[in-house]
Amino acid sequence: MTRSVDLAAAEAMDAADPLRAMRDRFVLPQGVIYLDGNSLGAASPTVFAEVDIAARQEWGEGLIRSWNTAGWFDMPLELGHRIGRLIGGAAGQTVVTDTTSINIYKALHAAMGLRPGRNAIVAEGGSFPTDLYMAEGVAATRPGARLKLEGVDAPAIEDLIDDTVAVVLINHVNYKSGELRDMAALTKRAHDAGALVVWDLCHSAGALPVELDACGADFAVGCTYKYLNGGPGAPAFIYVAKRHQAEAHQPLSGWWGHARPFAFEQGYDADAGIRRFQCGTQGMLSLRALKGALDVWDEVDMQALRKKSIALADLFIELVEARCAGHGLALESPRDGSKRGSQVSFTQDNAYAIMQALIARGVIGDFRAPSTLRFGFTPLYIGYADVWKAVDVLANVLATGAWKDPRFAVRAAVT
Amino acid sequence: MTRSVDLAAAEAMDAADPLRAMRDRFVLPQGVIYLDGNSLGAASPTVFAEVDIAARQEWGEGLIRSWNTAGWFDMPLELGHRIGRLIGGAAGQTVVTDTTSINIYKALHAAMGLRPGRNAIVAEGGSFPTDLYMAEGVAATRPGARLKLEGVDAPAIEDLIDDTVAVVLINHVNYKSGELRDMAALTKRAHDAGALVVWDLCHSAGALPVELDACGADFAVGCTYKYLNGGPGAPAFIYVAKRHQAEAHQPLSGWWGHARPFAFEQGYDADAGIRRFQCGTQGMLSLRALKGALDVWDEVDMQALRKKSIALADLFIELVEARCAGHGLALESPRDGSKRGSQVSFTQDNAYAIMQALIARGVIGDFRAPSTLRFGFTPLYIGYADVWKAVDVLANVLATGAWKDPRFAVRAAVT
Repeated sequence: MTRSVDLAAAEAMDAADPLRAMRDRFVLPQGVIYLDGNSLGAASPTVFAEVDIAARQEWGEGLIRSWNTAGWFDMPLELGHRIGRLIGGAAGQTVVTDTTSINIYKALHAAMGLRPGRNAIVAEGGSFPTDLYMAEGVAATRPGARLKLEGVDAPAIEDLIDDTVAVVLINHVNYKSGELRDMAALTKRAHDAGALVVWDLCHSAGALPVELDACGADFAVGCTYKYLNGGPGAPAFIYVAKRHQAEAHQPLSGWWGHARPFAFEQGYDADAGIRRFQCGTQGMLSLRALKGALDVWDEVDMQALRKKSIALADLFIELVEARCAGHGLALESPRDGSKRGSQVSFTQDNAYAIMQALIARGVIGDFRAPSTLRFGFTPLYIGYADVWKAVDVLANVLATGAWKDPRFAVRAAVT
Repeated sequence: MTRSVDLAAAEAMDAADPLRAMRDRFVLPQGVIYLDGNSLGAASPTVFAEVDIAARQEWGEGLIRSWNTAGWFDMPLELGHRIGRLIGGAAGQTVVTDTTSINIYKALHAAMGLRPGRNAIVAEGGSFPTDLYMAEGVAATRPGARLKLEGVDAPAIEDLIDDTVAVVLINHVNYKSGELRDMAALTKRAHDAGALVVWDLCHSAGALPVELDACGADFAVGCTYKYLNGGPGAPAFIYVAKRHQAEAHQPLSGWWGHARPFAFEQGYDADAGIRRFQCGTQGMLSLRALKGALDVWDEVDMQALRKKSIALADLFIELVEARCAGHGLALESPRDGSKRGSQVSFTQDNAYAIMQALIARGVIGDFRAPSTLRFGFTPLYIGYADVWKAVDVLANVLATGAWKDPRFAVRAAVT
């Protein structure tokens, strides 16, 4: 790729794209270039159809009977199994349930229970904050437990992993910079020290091929509303390696995790398998939206996805650096595509207002405090011409100073 | 009411019913008498419309922007506020989030934290099991904590409440028998002993007027998929009395409970109010179904609801005892309507097969192990003629022995 890429060249790349047909599976508003699928994935007619069936037919007509006839009760396991393919987890290790935050809580408790006598939880200072907040909550309920943070207690997470560490909580892809961690190497490093690892896949599930089983992973969690396109606030998932399941205990011991939930027994007896990481009744309409989204994913070749993801982001970096030079943008993401998720971030002192100006012109990315412009590249529905046009708008916003409009300085509740 | 009630008399009662028009707000399948709204409430066109808007317009067209423009982020608080009216909780004390099981976990932890030095959790042996399972999970993460159960450690819950007790977890209406506890008296009994109370409203929210504030309640939790008609697995709610909020700490300290969730701070700082009982991102499609259901509820007079609820159940008991005598049915629910929720249960040795035979004939109630036939009376969409017809079918199933058909002995996965 060279700086000579113009719109025609980008359109030619789209024409040759093997994933091009996937775009037709999604609905996207007119006049929008959507570079925020790493925050909320796009909707699809397949999803709408599933929700309609679940609401109007199964609930409206089937009522309570649908718990049996429509497979509602096993839906979290069925969907977990299908996500397993995307994250390299064999059957029976993944279940869709609750939220990422809550699944982090379960995984950390379970991991600490598997490593008695070790009291440290290692995490990243630059982690998506809820991971840290949940780790605080776990530490508060385990006497003696303490948190050690990369960037606070040591520069690199590897330096924090010693024989006091029960568990390491790591984001596979950093939400802000897009940096991709080496799952195999870090898992080995932790295991060599006798620690376990909880991988947060929020920004890698559906963004790139993940190989949990092959890396010897212990636990993983992730959301389904970003690259997996499950819908706003779609339920999260948790993966627990088969070898840990029988001894992994988590304190959110609700009836859906019981070995015999409908026997209505007085005492808790955890299911022997992954079901023990369930807790209570799950929202079926949200689950069914995810089912529709996974129907689309079932057709995707993850290697082709990764190849296109890197190409889109490389093109974006190249064009931004060529066309927006002199405006204070600094690349925050790794330049090497193999060390990056499916997003590109630049810092700029006026990032908030610039992003508002972009959004007002139909280029939707997002802002992360204090100064990050974040752009997600979702290969299923973003093409090379979209990248070219987005950079064209950004170059224009910077060149004209359009972002200085006072209305772009007003902060929204949710950024 | 006398035993002379025939179908014509029941139809006359429907004609005079002030809540009769509410039935038209719901969709119910042809040929079904639905007496299981206490397990999964019925759907309504209002709900379908909300889900359509949330999915097709707000998600499909608005994408990430809808977190601000469609009020998604504050939806749990908005819906909590509206549920507050139904449970007697003033604004700012109720939030819709997560599941009942998870909210029990939060409430018990918070209550124990408010009563340092007290280690006992009191609960009911006959509780819906997940309450007990969650209490076990809480006890497992609080050194020295222990569980004392009504029916196991003492016959009556009142006898278990002493100065070792931090918190009492009570179902307002028992899921099986329909017995209604005296909220004011039990709350006072606990407070007199220095203990707090967590009320489980799963079978009373939307079933009868609840007066949390007036009773001096501390905490309450409940689901929205039963009487509130929020849809299968609809999100649960939690109420925390204003006076406790600032000092109430719960360990599921996710980013949605943070005072400044979008500042992305490294340390957790709980919101000062009810938001601190939130944890992670909520499923918007399921929340929106509930919003539609609450639109219907906003029109309901709770006193009229209660009056009809008791009348429906009284009629059912009277007709069953008159027409099904000699078949081994024993009333499991309180006979006094003022001490009963909105359901009636009978025990019978062959309850499972009898319920299957009823369901095959379009009368949908449910079975609870080992021998309970459970019938819910939801005054918004069940009428007196429905009650009459349901008993007519039951009488026929018993008189003919139709329940002995071998196919009715086969247990389904979800009962």
